[in-house]
Amino acid sequence: MRQSQLFTKTRKLAPKDEVAKNAQLLIRGGFIHKEMAGVYDLLPLGMRVAENIKRIVREEMNAIGGQEIIMSSLQRKELWEKTDRWDDEKVDVWFKSELKSGGEVGFGWSHEEPITDMMKNYVDSYRDLPKYTYQFQTKLRNELRSKSGIMRGREFVMKDMYSYSIDEKAHKEFYDKVTAAYLKVFERVGLGDRTFLTFASGGAFTQFSHEFQTLCETGEDTVYLNRDKKIAINKEVLTDEVLTQLKLKRDDLEEVTAAEVGNIFSFGDVKSKELDLYYKDEKGKKKPVILGSYGLGITRLMGVLVEVFADDKGIVWPEEVSPYKVHLISISGGNSDVVAEADHVYKLLAEHGIEALYDDRDVRAGEKFADADLIGISKRLVMSEKTLSEGGVELIHRKDGTTAMVPEIAIIERLTEKK
Amino acid sequence: MRQSQLFTKTRKLAPKDEVAKNAQLLIRGGFIHKEMAGVYDLLPLGMRVAENIKRIVREEMNAIGGQEIIMSSLQRKELWEKTDRWDDEKVDVWFKSELKSGGEVGFGWSHEEPITDMMKNYVDSYRDLPKYTYQFQTKLRNELRSKSGIMRGREFVMKDMYSYSIDEKAHKEFYDKVTAAYLKVFERVGLGDRTFLTFASGGAFTQFSHEFQTLCETGEDTVYLNRDKKIAINKEVLTDEVLTQLKLKRDDLEEVTAAEVGNIFSFGDVKSKELDLYYKDEKGKKKPVILGSYGLGITRLMGVLVEVFADDKGIVWPEEVSPYKVHLISISGGNSDVVAEADHVYKLLAEHGIEALYDDRDVRAGEKFADADLIGISKRLVMSEKTLSEGGVELIHRKDGTTAMVPEIAIIERLTEKK
Repeated sequence: MRQSQLFTKTRKLAPKDEVAKNAQLLIRGGFIHKEMAGVYDLLPLGMRVAENIKRIVREEMNAIGGQEIIMSSLQRKELWEKTDRWDDEKVDVWFKSELKSGGEVGFGWSHEEPITDMMKNYVDSYRDLPKYTYQFQTKLRNELRSKSGIMRGREFVMKDMYSYSIDEKAHKEFYDKVTAAYLKVFERVGLGDRTFLTFASGGAFTQFSHEFQTLCETGEDTVYLNRDKKIAINKEVLTDEVLTQLKLKRDDLEEVTAAEVGNIFSFGDVKSKELDLYYKDEKGKKKPVILGSYGLGITRLMGVLVEVFADDKGIVWPEEVSPYKVHLISISGGNSDVVAEADHVYKLLAEHGIEALYDDRDVRAGEKFADADLIGISKRLVMSEKTLSEGGVELIHRKDGTTAMVPEIAIIERLTEKK
Repeated sequence: MRQSQLFTKTRKLAPKDEVAKNAQLLIRGGFIHKEMAGVYDLLPLGMRVAENIKRIVREEMNAIGGQEIIMSSLQRKELWEKTDRWDDEKVDVWFKSELKSGGEVGFGWSHEEPITDMMKNYVDSYRDLPKYTYQFQTKLRNELRSKSGIMRGREFVMKDMYSYSIDEKAHKEFYDKVTAAYLKVFERVGLGDRTFLTFASGGAFTQFSHEFQTLCETGEDTVYLNRDKKIAINKEVLTDEVLTQLKLKRDDLEEVTAAEVGNIFSFGDVKSKELDLYYKDEKGKKKPVILGSYGLGITRLMGVLVEVFADDKGIVWPEEVSPYKVHLISISGGNSDVVAEADHVYKLLAEHGIEALYDDRDVRAGEKFADADLIGISKRLVMSEKTLSEGGVELIHRKDGTTAMVPEIAIIERLTEKK
């Protein structure tokens, strides 16, 4: 994409009412636009980052047998009444409206109920299990306050997966697989060494649920971390009893601030009984299906990546989610040879399937570099009279500023090698 | 995908309250699930078809310079008040709700207003124009009745594009480009010879808008078609004056029933003035931006494809949108050689990047064929003792039932050749 064609531009300032660093930088870089508190549009650069995160999550969910669907946002009152979650006293984030044809309708803040109800069409016998299904869904939640940018919104994209298993043992096996898949996702987006499986409060069925908490100064959670064992405990379940159970000592725990990037939990047979999802076992006996639920916030993860990696110059995208693989910057100073050479390299990259943002704009070098720092594409290629005379381009890593001269002939190799 | 793993199953019957053929077949085939009237979930097969349609549309929109974004569903009252479209008397399909923090919020039934407002951040000068932006958005519309399956829903996926041009001339040039791109989309999805550019009522700014109407017995529109000139006139604008203007004679028009699959129209400078989107021209003079709006219903198109092409056995997908490229069916009759050979072909297809639905289920041949007819994948490969003895597979085209024996060595070639 030629940057001169991109409809967004960088901005010196974010809206005055925006207090979250992630939203400030993403708005300034042209990734998102603020509609209202907690509600953001994804602009071309933001879409690309979100799609990269989705691609990674999709690959890992497919790898463990997940099947992708997309449920509706409009939801039936009757269904949520069955599980006693329609009442605003029970769930305080509902958006609700009136149907023209009569009756109330809800807007999806979560999807366990409709997905489990839908599954009734496809589950009769033990032979139909297990089933794993997931979606990337725009969730709508009527939050009272929204000051964390895209880390906690009224409208946000979440991957939610649901598992339907024959018994507790089969459920547990899949639950562990999801845990491993989640850790892989966080590894791939560059948060592996700062994201920890965290014990949190369970529910009617199990003692614990599990969160994935990423060390992040602006996170909303306080968790207690054992770095050696790579596990953490959410404040809400930190008791002597739990410590004994997990074989941890209070003295070995470090209090840290973290952002929840994923959470997984077991519903056991509670929801299946409420919603009437049963199967017949090998002896023809009717049994409730065991349900697991696995959330991972896509736009929240995008916000956390900004919070964690940004420096004083702007955003620093990890390579796998970077909106473009490379930011090609031409500093021609009016020299048409430099322009021609930059055009040539842009074409070369395209021919090799390397997606580049090409800063072909007629603006000062300083402005180009400042914009590139703000936008935060992981690798930068700079062409100028100087690099031209040396027969190559300058490769700069956004993360650590390391630079190297790369001869034109080696560009493709250097950009495709694994670091 | 092994069919034994697919969580959906075919059904003999659709829900009793479902009167639309498209929804009946799509529900029976396991493509969609009905949440309520006019609201459907997309299940794995349905997702694949919708994604194929989106891919085609995305390619054509990108080809004319479109930049993809995704706007929020939640919308601000103040914005729609500026254009006098907040009032339920003016727009009768709004879903609205109350924000916990106070005030009303709307759910996006259309997006001209927020996109135009967002553009104000990026348009200052004539140098910033033109700009073309589009999204695949889940629209929510509070329709009183919804009896057309996924052809007219309360929740549906639409591609909407918006063009921002410097003047009427530049606008008209792009408008014509979009017209050509739309015709290409309908050509690619197999509706080229039955979809017609149709003159419909304009609005405050222009005499006409344009619809793309597909001949379809269950469509909601009556249009008057001149087959030779390949244009049609919507009933709503059919007057003697318009006929003279378009150089058409009433006698040369054929009354046909059609489904609207796209519509494009010019807002002129009306919305820009209402929402304060101006640019400075070369002389520094402030001028309103010219706006065009271009809709194409993704899920509606999916419904129309079913209505138009289905036969008495089930759905018939055109090749480019077929959920899988090929339906591989193993009729083993307990013969493990057939199973091994089918497994081998499945692997072979995967190695060549040909996505297949592999019916590896342990059910009767008749059931497999009936399901394959219902699901409607464009090409079918059948393996049995008979085909094994002949050293190949049977290739059957769903559309016309033509069959051919293909030696194993030629399978890949036959499946990748252009018809």
